[in-house]
Amino acid sequence: MARGYEVRPDELGTVHIGLGAIGVAVARLVHERGARIVGAVDIAPDLAGRPLAEVLGLSAALDGVTVAGDLADVATDSADVALHCAGSVLAAAAPGLSAAMAAGLHVVSTCEELAYPWDDEPELATRLDREARAAGVTLLGTGVNPGYAMDYLPAVLTAPCRHVTSIDVLRVQEAGGRRAALQRKVGAGLSADEFAAGVAAGRLGHVGLGRSARALAAALGWRLEGVDETIEPLLGDVDGTAGAEDQVSGVHQVATGATAAGQRVRLTLDMGVGVADPREEMHVHGEPELHVTVPGGIPGDVATAALVANVLPRVLAAPPGLLVMTDLPPPRPWG
Amino acid sequence: MARGYEVRPDELGTVHIGLGAIGVAVARLVHERGARIVGAVDIAPDLAGRPLAEVLGLSAALDGVTVAGDLADVATDSADVALHCAGSVLAAAAPGLSAAMAAGLHVVSTCEELAYPWDDEPELATRLDREARAAGVTLLGTGVNPGYAMDYLPAVLTAPCRHVTSIDVLRVQEAGGRRAALQRKVGAGLSADEFAAGVAAGRLGHVGLGRSARALAAALGWRLEGVDETIEPLLGDVDGTAGAEDQVSGVHQVATGATAAGQRVRLTLDMGVGVADPREEMHVHGEPELHVTVPGGIPGDVATAALVANVLPRVLAAPPGLLVMTDLPPPRPWG
Repeated sequence: MARGYEVRPDELGTVHIGLGAIGVAVARLVHERGARIVGAVDIAPDLAGRPLAEVLGLSAALDGVTVAGDLADVATDSADVALHCAGSVLAAAAPGLSAAMAAGLHVVSTCEELAYPWDDEPELATRLDREARAAGVTLLGTGVNPGYAMDYLPAVLTAPCRHVTSIDVLRVQEAGGRRAALQRKVGAGLSADEFAAGVAAGRLGHVGLGRSARALAAALGWRLEGVDETIEPLLGDVDGTAGAEDQVSGVHQVATGATAAGQRVRLTLDMGVGVADPREEMHVHGEPELHVTVPGGIPGDVATAALVANVLPRVLAAPPGLLVMTDLPPPRPWG
Repeated sequence: MARGYEVRPDELGTVHIGLGAIGVAVARLVHERGARIVGAVDIAPDLAGRPLAEVLGLSAALDGVTVAGDLADVATDSADVALHCAGSVLAAAAPGLSAAMAAGLHVVSTCEELAYPWDDEPELATRLDREARAAGVTLLGTGVNPGYAMDYLPAVLTAPCRHVTSIDVLRVQEAGGRRAALQRKVGAGLSADEFAAGVAAGRLGHVGLGRSARALAAALGWRLEGVDETIEPLLGDVDGTAGAEDQVSGVHQVATGATAAGQRVRLTLDMGVGVADPREEMHVHGEPELHVTVPGGIPGDVATAALVANVLPRVLAAPPGLLVMTDLPPPRPWG
């Protein structure tokens, strides 16, 4: 609506798929905002059958909703949207996304690879897009990164530009205060050899940097000829003990891509324990040149849960299909 | 489209209403990008009948388009959108906007008061909205400010927030290198008495700061109880001569508004000759707290012309009616 859009939280019914740290934060947030939680699903045996309110740590009864082991056991008739926080790898998440869409639900997912699957997994993306259109629902991958900090926000910065030749985005995140899973993911405390082994095994590092590069380029109408991704350890004295110079404190990841015409995207992510000067930094090169900084940066866990909740009114108003974030007008808090 | 949207500039036909500095910059830009300029209108007697190419300083013939004194004399059949850069006051601009819509054209205008007219001129806004819907076209006010720097961009910054209690935006612009009309508008070189007289007569200051506050609040779903606007001189030594301490170097404008629940918007605009540290600065208060800076700021004239051009694909894909910028997905350069 032109005058500023209204949100009626009590008219929004949600199903929560995946009750890890982010899934719980999302469910708590939409509950706080007055949405109706219709169902919850998690494959963990120790969650099956438990009252959702207890899992979320809420005193509210949540209409007696319990955690189901499978979406088929949830009465989805009065739900509008599934909030899917269950995995980073799209091929693994796809069956869950498809099931939710087949149940007639819009789906918003934190699956990092869903943020922009068109270039890396075109067949899977096309299939999910087709399923969404057939069901008349919208499918969207979002989160702080991919989804916002290194793609949506930098894309927004090009709006006042006559032309853009390249974009550099740097995200420096402190992992020390973050959830344990993230600290493990960045390899803090490992030796350089252990880090290399973890990278080789695919256990370490942020998933989705290349997808952010793809998403940002696509938002600008650029066709990248390819994306190169590197991952190296941040080395340093993590815990103040002597002789820790060889100890890994985190990851240094870079994704770069260029078009045939030489337009270029470069995303750098430094995430570790005890990193100096956490921040977001964006340089848009072109006319005009723009340099944007966010001192302290955007806190990842809070922001991802907020983004999932904040996009809901935009998703409900969007056309069916597999969308990307820059297809949507700006999300904002509601409720 | 989900994969990044395509723009076919040669399928875009434009009519340019108003050939002042910004209107000329807009026309040159869409021409550079390959759009078809179908017509041009300006009420200035010395422009009437002149070849548009000559007015724009282009060697291209532009299909022999000449400047008409009235839109009725332009063959609008092959045009899609009118780019209207003719005045800051909506009541004065409205007849021109209505005529373009009646001709079946989408309209993008730099008229500052069009950026968010719903609260200050609800009857006029409602009428223009009705006319746009009746004609099946979209009407949008945009520019760097209002339109982007103090409304769209700050609204985008709330996307990763659980909640927001207030937003402060500061825009410090150097007017020294800008067009003469702007330098006059900020009162540079006047005495304090002359400045006060100019403010009283409505000759000085930036038009639209209150509209930006309204637009930003509406984008967040906030209903402001009112907006207070103040305008004061920036005093200082403009040209390096002794004894210039009382001379005006620019304007210091503030627009504030609050909701009944205490949510607050505060926009501050300092624009003058020789201002220190030009920049954009935004503080989003809530969870998380976000602080964003754009050192050097966003250059106004370049950015306004770019925004008018950049929104065109988004406007063509938008629903009919009087829209505001935050109704649209992020614009970006094309062509």
